[in-house]
Amino acid sequence: MEKPPGNPQPVVKPQFFTFGGPPNEFILESGQKIGPVTIAYETYGELNKDKTNAILILHALSGDAHVAGYHEGDNKPGWWDLMVGPGKAMDTNKYFVLCSNVLGSCYGSTGPSSVNPKTGKPYGLSFPVVTISDMVKAQKALLDSIGISQLVTVIGGSMGGMQAIEWTLQFPDVPKSAIVIASCAALSDQEIAFDTVGRNAIKADTEWENGEYYGRDKKLKGLAIARMIGHITYLSEEGMAEKFKRRLQSGEKNLSYKIRYEKEVPCTTGSTVFDKDFEREFAVESYLAYQGEKFVKRFDANSYLYITKAMDYYDAAAKWGGGSLKQAMKRTKAEFLLISFTSDMLFSPDQSKAIVEALRVNNKDVSYIEIDSKHGHDAFLLEKKTMNENKILSQAIKNFLLHSRV
Amino acid sequence: MEKPPGNPQPVVKPQFFTFGGPPNEFILESGQKIGPVTIAYETYGELNKDKTNAILILHALSGDAHVAGYHEGDNKPGWWDLMVGPGKAMDTNKYFVLCSNVLGSCYGSTGPSSVNPKTGKPYGLSFPVVTISDMVKAQKALLDSIGISQLVTVIGGSMGGMQAIEWTLQFPDVPKSAIVIASCAALSDQEIAFDTVGRNAIKADTEWENGEYYGRDKKLKGLAIARMIGHITYLSEEGMAEKFKRRLQSGEKNLSYKIRYEKEVPCTTGSTVFDKDFEREFAVESYLAYQGEKFVKRFDANSYLYITKAMDYYDAAAKWGGGSLKQAMKRTKAEFLLISFTSDMLFSPDQSKAIVEALRVNNKDVSYIEIDSKHGHDAFLLEKKTMNENKILSQAIKNFLLHSRV
Repeated sequence: MEKPPGNPQPVVKPQFFTFGGPPNEFILESGQKIGPVTIAYETYGELNKDKTNAILILHALSGDAHVAGYHEGDNKPGWWDLMVGPGKAMDTNKYFVLCSNVLGSCYGSTGPSSVNPKTGKPYGLSFPVVTISDMVKAQKALLDSIGISQLVTVIGGSMGGMQAIEWTLQFPDVPKSAIVIASCAALSDQEIAFDTVGRNAIKADTEWENGEYYGRDKKLKGLAIARMIGHITYLSEEGMAEKFKRRLQSGEKNLSYKIRYEKEVPCTTGSTVFDKDFEREFAVESYLAYQGEKFVKRFDANSYLYITKAMDYYDAAAKWGGGSLKQAMKRTKAEFLLISFTSDMLFSPDQSKAIVEALRVNNKDVSYIEIDSKHGHDAFLLEKKTMNENKILSQAIKNFLLHSRV
Repeated sequence: MEKPPGNPQPVVKPQFFTFGGPPNEFILESGQKIGPVTIAYETYGELNKDKTNAILILHALSGDAHVAGYHEGDNKPGWWDLMVGPGKAMDTNKYFVLCSNVLGSCYGSTGPSSVNPKTGKPYGLSFPVVTISDMVKAQKALLDSIGISQLVTVIGGSMGGMQAIEWTLQFPDVPKSAIVIASCAALSDQEIAFDTVGRNAIKADTEWENGEYYGRDKKLKGLAIARMIGHITYLSEEGMAEKFKRRLQSGEKNLSYKIRYEKEVPCTTGSTVFDKDFEREFAVESYLAYQGEKFVKRFDANSYLYITKAMDYYDAAAKWGGGSLKQAMKRTKAEFLLISFTSDMLFSPDQSKAIVEALRVNNKDVSYIEIDSKHGHDAFLLEKKTMNENKILSQAIKNFLLHSRV
């Protein structure tokens, strides 16, 4: 599904499934109802006659349904194009691959930026709490509508891995296997902490206006701050050091004894004396500021609040095992592959190992791979085919799909 | 210097040293001039006749000169009271201990919140860039005014450690030894990244008003966000997990399947459905929000910008060794004790080890202790005497002062 040079690009189109119109609203984990609900999704490859060759890909916090191929006019493929296509790890000559945008997001699925049919206005904060379980339940409705009752695998990284875990617990008869990458069964307090700082930054922004900023031309700086924090946690200290080396954005060396000014003005005159603006003097500052600005253009601040909250709430052990992950994992019938990255400061290898352990004590089939990487949490989203992480990840997924009992 | 029960408390008073009035302004590393400059400081114990028993304590980012004892009417002692006093690690029966508030701060020393005598208004962003070297140079002026030309030791944690290193390089003949705790010779890009997110949060705050918020009753939420980010990095993942355990602030267990609402209202009516406010449902969220609010009351947002920037700029290797820390450390004549904490995610043991290595290759006297701790970067500021970290730290400082050649 890579763009063949000189050839017309393979074009994929988003599809939409709408359900839960009154009086059959979608019932959320909280007991609240919402409807109608639209789920945006994309598919790659062909569903076989028995509808038994489907793979469900589950995206992370800010992801979308556009996994592979190109949208009309785009020159950049979907976010996991490296892994999905003919002959790739998830071989579309063999599998029917599907990915849907999560409930609560802003890429075509119903979320806080969607219009509430009851009011004719965007939901904003009147959107109900959604959970990882709700996201999975909405995906189940989509599969039901297609007639898929069996999945070869559920696969995802980060929040996608949390959904994969939830799939094997909420619908243990559906996925024959699960591939959980750089993920966990419950966020640590530190992860909740990073999330809450992001949410506080969004809420502190006067332009956020209690979530009712839609239709106005707002630059939500709070969302940019939240993204900057996120980005630090997606990388690693080592990876950042290698990438930025304390370089200044100007290209000059940082020499603390050679602080440069735009104007050589003695402070007593009262002029501002910082060379830049307290924002982007070092290369790493410029990088983060750019990431923040880019994110504001593409993502909805309220979706950020709801989805991070869904991640914070999720606790597989609490939900399915009375607090015990071992107890929870009794339910699963899937064969598992867990993958973590050594330098992941967000979802550490230890969090993956805890899941492996909980599966092993239940005599479940489980494989675990810890990939040596400097690229931190984001290692599963590296864009270059040649990156070692991609080679190992690709091979691991391929092998697992070939040799597992599914 | 602990408060004896039933006895009048030992009261210490801040002192002030002012210098650099026109035309003899203080010349900063940047070449800019500022004056007059006031430095707030406190002293404990008695200076001996030869003025050879002085210890200089160097505080961290948001610290002040009030290290030990009590201010009139306070019931909480200074920030390192555990380490300074009769019979303590820095024994005031033996040593004359001094600590000054850094240039650029807001606790009595000249900083952006000080009034610029030329304009009669607070400096704000017209305050010149200050560096770690400038802070040290101002401390030197203070010592000169007292007639101290020799220090038993310079000691500090975090940014205090950076100042201690700079002391041994800028004034190699003054400190006979240096104790550098949880510190580094230059921030990593990841540390600069955390700082820049904090600075961006301050600047994004509309109430910050380009730094001209003085005299107005402002709640600088941006500064609170910056502090929240800081606090995450001062703790460790493990320490946080142990402290908060994914508890909800309400005391109820977090059960993702039992999301609680203030009102059980179906979302279709448009009411807000989050139980709390996206801010402080989990205990860790409440803790961080509280820390942020508390900080805004006690610290100046502009000082936060300037001091974090000073930390980012500092690079002992670039400044004194043409980029080589080994080369830089040739200059030092001090005997070193370096201490790090295993779980410090901000200033890692590896950063201390790099300094140790640079000293060793120059055949300098250096001891290194890596303290096993779950308490992260803040381990050197733990308030309970009984904490293991305090016992080890206290003993290490005491032994070093007793047995080093000084």
